[in-house]
Amino acid sequence: VLGALADYVGAELSGSICADLQIKDLATLDAAEISDLSLFSSNKYRDAATRSRAGAIITTRKLGVLLPGSMRLLYVANPHLAFTNISYLFYPSGALQPGIHTTAVVDPGATIGRGCQIDAGAKVGRAVTLGSNCHIGANVVIDCGVSIGDECIIGPNTSIRNALMGSHVHIASNACIGGEGFGFVTGPKGVARVRQLGRVIIGDNVEIGSNSSVDRGALGDTVIGSGTVIDNLVQIAHNVQIGRNCVLAGQVGIAGSAKIGDNVYIGGRSAICDHVTIGSNVRVAGGSGVMRDAVDSEILGGYPAVPIRQWHRQTTGLARLFGRCGQQAP
Amino acid sequence: VLGALADYVGAELSGSICADLQIKDLATLDAAEISDLSLFSSNKYRDAATRSRAGAIITTRKLGVLLPGSMRLLYVANPHLAFTNISYLFYPSGALQPGIHTTAVVDPGATIGRGCQIDAGAKVGRAVTLGSNCHIGANVVIDCGVSIGDECIIGPNTSIRNALMGSHVHIASNACIGGEGFGFVTGPKGVARVRQLGRVIIGDNVEIGSNSSVDRGALGDTVIGSGTVIDNLVQIAHNVQIGRNCVLAGQVGIAGSAKIGDNVYIGGRSAICDHVTIGSNVRVAGGSGVMRDAVDSEILGGYPAVPIRQWHRQTTGLARLFGRCGQQAP
Amino acid sequence: VLGALADYVGAELSGSICADLQIKDLATLDAAEISDLSLFSSNKYRDAATRSRAGAIITTRKLGVLLPGSMRLLYVANPHLAFTNISYLFYPSGALQPGIHTTAVVDPGATIGRGCQIDAGAKVGRAVTLGSNCHIGANVVIDCGVSIGDECIIGPNTSIRNALMGSHVHIASNACIGGEGFGFVTGPKGVARVRQLGRVIIGDNVEIGSNSSVDRGALGDTVIGSGTVIDNLVQIAHNVQIGRNCVLAGQVGIAGSAKIGDNVYIGGRSAICDHVTIGSNVRVAGGSGVMRDAVDSEILGGYPAVPIRQWHRQTTGLARLFGRCGQQAP
Repeated sequence: VLGALADYVGAELSGSICADLQIKDLATLDAAEISDLSLFSSNKYRDAATRSRAGAIITTRKLGVLLPGSMRLLYVANPHLAFTNISYLFYPSGALQPGIHTTAVVDPGATIGRGCQIDAGAKVGRAVTLGSNCHIGANVVIDCGVSIGDECIIGPNTSIRNALMGSHVHIASNACIGGEGFGFVTGPKGVARVRQLGRVIIGDNVEIGSNSSVDRGALGDTVIGSGTVIDNLVQIAHNVQIGRNCVLAGQVGIAGSAKIGDNVYIGGRSAICDHVTIGSNVRVAGGSGVMRDAVDSEILGGYPAVPIRQWHRQTTGLARLFGRCGQQAP
Repeated sequence: VLGALADYVGAELSGSICADLQIKDLATLDAAEISDLSLFSSNKYRDAATRSRAGAIITTRKLGVLLPGSMRLLYVANPHLAFTNISYLFYPSGALQPGIHTTAVVDPGATIGRGCQIDAGAKVGRAVTLGSNCHIGANVVIDCGVSIGDECIIGPNTSIRNALMGSHVHIASNACIGGEGFGFVTGPKGVARVRQLGRVIIGDNVEIGSNSSVDRGALGDTVIGSGTVIDNLVQIAHNVQIGRNCVLAGQVGIAGSAKIGDNVYIGGRSAICDHVTIGSNVRVAGGSGVMRDAVDSEILGGYPAVPIRQWHRQTTGLARLFGRCGQQAP
Repeated sequence: VLGALADYVGAELSGSICADLQIKDLATLDAAEISDLSLFSSNKYRDAATRSRAGAIITTRKLGVLLPGSMRLLYVANPHLAFTNISYLFYPSGALQPGIHTTAVVDPGATIGRGCQIDAGAKVGRAVTLGSNCHIGANVVIDCGVSIGDECIIGPNTSIRNALMGSHVHIASNACIGGEGFGFVTGPKGVARVRQLGRVIIGDNVEIGSNSSVDRGALGDTVIGSGTVIDNLVQIAHNVQIGRNCVLAGQVGIAGSAKIGDNVYIGGRSAICDHVTIGSNVRVAGGSGVMRDAVDSEILGGYPAVPIRQWHRQTTGLARLFGRCGQQAP
């Protein structure tokens, strides 16, 4: 069957490989046995790859030359992508079990598309619209007026209100979409809450991780463009606008009214200040705090964030000035 | 009706405006039409204000002179506050629908004030006290002994235990109030949990955001003073004491036994170390890590946090030392 | 009864104390009355201890000499541990009320050990295994196939899937265990999700705080060793491996495939980069960002993290260079 897998992803076989080999599962380099297919995609794992007993290993021609000639390799241009595509052959997504659990509470004024699965304890409010083939997890709460497209998955214990979302959106567990934005104004009687009236608009193919919060807009809307993926414990404040195909890693925070272009990658634990504008194709290193606008394709790092090469100069320069061998010992 | 709105917030009308103009809604400068009222409160949005087709715009006299003389302006001292007050005229808070949903589980030993709305799947334990006109969201879990004042709102999927709170408290969705503090002591048999016996005491008019955690005290209590507002994904550890009218932005973390005065503003993503004491009227810039005590009215920034002017000198100085034009190229 | 308490923890009594004194409760130094036992464990609280009206105070001989000779002291080597042990005498853990609430939804294919308490609205899926004497909180969602050992406590509104855990594991409220890892690969058709197939393996005596997320592994597993304790709002990404008896404070983030040894302490708000390896007995100061491997027993601080003494030299050196008295004023 190996030959069929190779064809499926357009791979070439190394000389030492037999296209008849039976591949039964996928495994890491360390754990793989003769019937497993594995992945070697970074120099860092060269030792593990050399020792691996995998039946075959997907890699690139360039990485392949690092391994003994006797190893059974599938050469492709993008091993991660090929491996991912094969993983869906081995582990197709679980089939939905359409129907509404008897303990779910679905308002009669909600519109539920065909093929939807609504799990135990879920609440679906008045005037909610669900497209077809959605999976609403246990104890999810969807407030009145929310609109959800086709083939969306909402994880258990997630809360959604004031939101419109496209199709193929996945929201993980314990997330909160559409809560009140954090807007206050100081008046003579103390702090007054600014009335939040906007929505959260989510495009197609968006992912939002567990324990993440996306607040509704104050007057305008909070917008997350199609194809954008967001990790766990991320905070998206009111009126943030995020473009298409962005990647926001874990614990990122985007403050109110910040504007982010397309194809922006933001490393874990980074923060973007309120009202800041970030162009397209920007990269932000993990842990950064971006306090100023960034033009297209800038690469930033540090707190406060500066161009990444400058940040590297600063951190290595600091280490030189005050490092172990310096005369600045305490 | 514009004249009535102006009277309501004590605004003066610019010369070009007609008090008879019908205002039907609120909108951003970009989206507003002739029947909408909009807000111009910062120089940053001058272009949008100039282009706006809003029927009228609330602003200050000072900002107003930046706009063409033909624009229809309402002058007030604090445009945000005026706009907020008007927003409550247009969008009054939703009326409660008093009653207990049939799928909610309310212990017979709980005391529920009049006018409360308890949504589907909520659990209210033994000896819980709810004041009048509270709204308990779907799937909220309130453990035995919790006391909640009047007109409180608890968002869906939030968990509350070991807590006493005043009136007009709003807790958003998926928050956790009163969990066990993170206290461990190392003994001969490894790590032992320190028994947590305290409570969370929350004053009046407090707001707590979604996915935030407030732990109970170990022996004494964790305290959040009246009028304090807390954003999403904030961590308040055991025995923290926060004064009145503080503002804690998103992803802030306050470590165990830290003490914070009144009117303290803590920017997003900042952290306060354990056992640190922060005076009143202190300001902490976003992203800071405060590792030492701060006296009243200090303004801090950086990690570790220093007086903000020193932090600015440090960051600009670093950029000068190792910046683009320097001779320290990598 | 004081004599009995002293015997229980092996304490010596100071001269001024009477072994017959009745101790009825535990309290902080400030709040304690004559019938209370209190704790004095750090020089920082010397004033409070001197003023305390506690019936008796647990402390060390070394701290005891700081107090007036008339105070009633119990001398032990580790006051925190002694106080913790006594606290369990005064406040034994609440007894379980075995049984499944009528509104819980337990799949007939689940195996429930004896003595378990399953609260209102909890969902327990097919092929779930619960050991004996577990407490599953209200509205918890446990997906099919999860295995949980004996005497585990799962807090309200927590979601668990793709996980195997040992005994005496405590998971707080609103946590998410076993969600999909954040793995994407860029292909010609945009961002494709990497199929996540691994599990979360949790040892014995593990604690995980509220609003924390632990993702399942992609191919291999995410592993948390026995005795490790994790605070609130912590992110553990896919394929992270954490050893035994580690302590991760609030808002820590561990990125994908990072490997952490035994007895590692990570201060609040610190982050460990993906694919980084941290040895055993490492200490990481709060707020750090660790971007490189660390050998056993290293002590790191800063962003990017460096050896802690170097970090202190850097921060004090920076303050000297650009501090108040310098000539670099803005």
